[in-house]
Amino acid sequence: MELLDKLNWRYAAKAMNGQKVSEEKIANIIEAARLAPTSSGLQPFEIIVVKNQAIKEAIRPVAWNQSMITDCSHLLVFAAWDTYTEERINKMFDLTNEIRGFKNEGWENYRQMLLSNYPQKDAEENFNHAAKQAYIAFSAAIIAAAFEGVDTTPIEGFDPAAVDKILGLREKGLRSCVLLPIGYRDTDKDWLVNLKKVRKSTEDLVTIVE
Amino acid sequence: MELLDKLNWRYAAKAMNGQKVSEEKIANIIEAARLAPTSSGLQPFEIIVVKNQAIKEAIRPVAWNQSMITDCSHLLVFAAWDTYTEERINKMFDLTNEIRGFKNEGWENYRQMLLSNYPQKDAEENFNHAAKQAYIAFSAAIIAAAFEGVDTTPIEGFDPAAVDKILGLREKGLRSCVLLPIGYRDTDKDWLVNLKKVRKSTEDLVTIVE
Repeated sequence: MELLDKLNWRYAAKAMNGQKVSEEKIANIIEAARLAPTSSGLQPFEIIVVKNQAIKEAIRPVAWNQSMITDCSHLLVFAAWDTYTEERINKMFDLTNEIRGFKNEGWENYRQMLLSNYPQKDAEENFNHAAKQAYIAFSAAIIAAAFEGVDTTPIEGFDPAAVDKILGLREKGLRSCVLLPIGYRDTDKDWLVNLKKVRKSTEDLVTIVE
Repeated sequence: MELLDKLNWRYAAKAMNGQKVSEEKIANIIEAARLAPTSSGLQPFEIIVVKNQAIKEAIRPVAWNQSMITDCSHLLVFAAWDTYTEERINKMFDLTNEIRGFKNEGWENYRQMLLSNYPQKDAEENFNHAAKQAYIAFSAAIIAAAFEGVDTTPIEGFDPAAVDKILGLREKGLRSCVLLPIGYRDTDKDWLVNLKKVRKSTEDLVTIVE
């Protein structure tokens, strides 16, 4: 399967060469993230696409000084909703009715169930749930980049509060949860580029219940 | 891009017809999950593949009685590590050395950094972190199924403690975090099959920082 070839080709680039990625490829990568499934279809996150070099320079020191932050072409910041609110939930359910052109009773009951549950929960619990949905889209973006022959580095090693401040995310009700520099590998400088991919065996990963 | 076609084709099937999915397709779907990237390469989760109908029947009532649980071909249960331990971290770093055939000083320092941080953290925080990694693989599995022309239903609506008990997961240091029935859509019974896919607009999802 072509997907498996792409997953074997990709790796977490540890050095990038500054070469720009075309806007067409970036649009396809973002489209994959947009199409990814999320719990109740809420898509509880946004993606900040940092092209500005000064902003990348500001983020690098709060991301363990990783060179890909500044040597990438586009830095994607996945930022999840800080909590679920009535307004946010209603907006997605209203959009569903608008796109489908009718109200579905089952779906309206489901809206009420979410409205009576989610906004009352602890914000941290809601953020954690929203972040998991962002990770589904994050994975789709990584895979899409591989299909475009573009490198990425999935990065959790950063100070989210500092990145939130640089990008003004908290004011928008968002919290950064994961970074994705997109660019091209620097094969001369990347210690990881020629090393074998390591994954645990299928036997260690999977249990079959026959 | 073919990936976007597959993402547009797929949807969360709300009814399945009981038809079996070939073991070859299932193996490819699991392989995609196995190859997915995870934080520090720890792959902190396992996948339980439930083929046994009686076990599916036992899970269905603790999963909002959703018919896909019993009408799917294979039910994948993604179960994350309940916490990070020294043993688990060392096992993955040792595997890396074994596969690559040498010890890398930087990587060994990184091992020590994780050992001095992760096991001491609150188990709930560690589980949440591990679950996010499972979601990256979960996303890869959903995409792989679409490439195989196979339907899936991403399911968070279930009682994790009850599923853990049915499958004996806590004894193995695992906690279920998300379910993925794999099978074929029942077009006559699925209310969602002909409805339009709903996603927020790219403008609502993305902010460009030029």
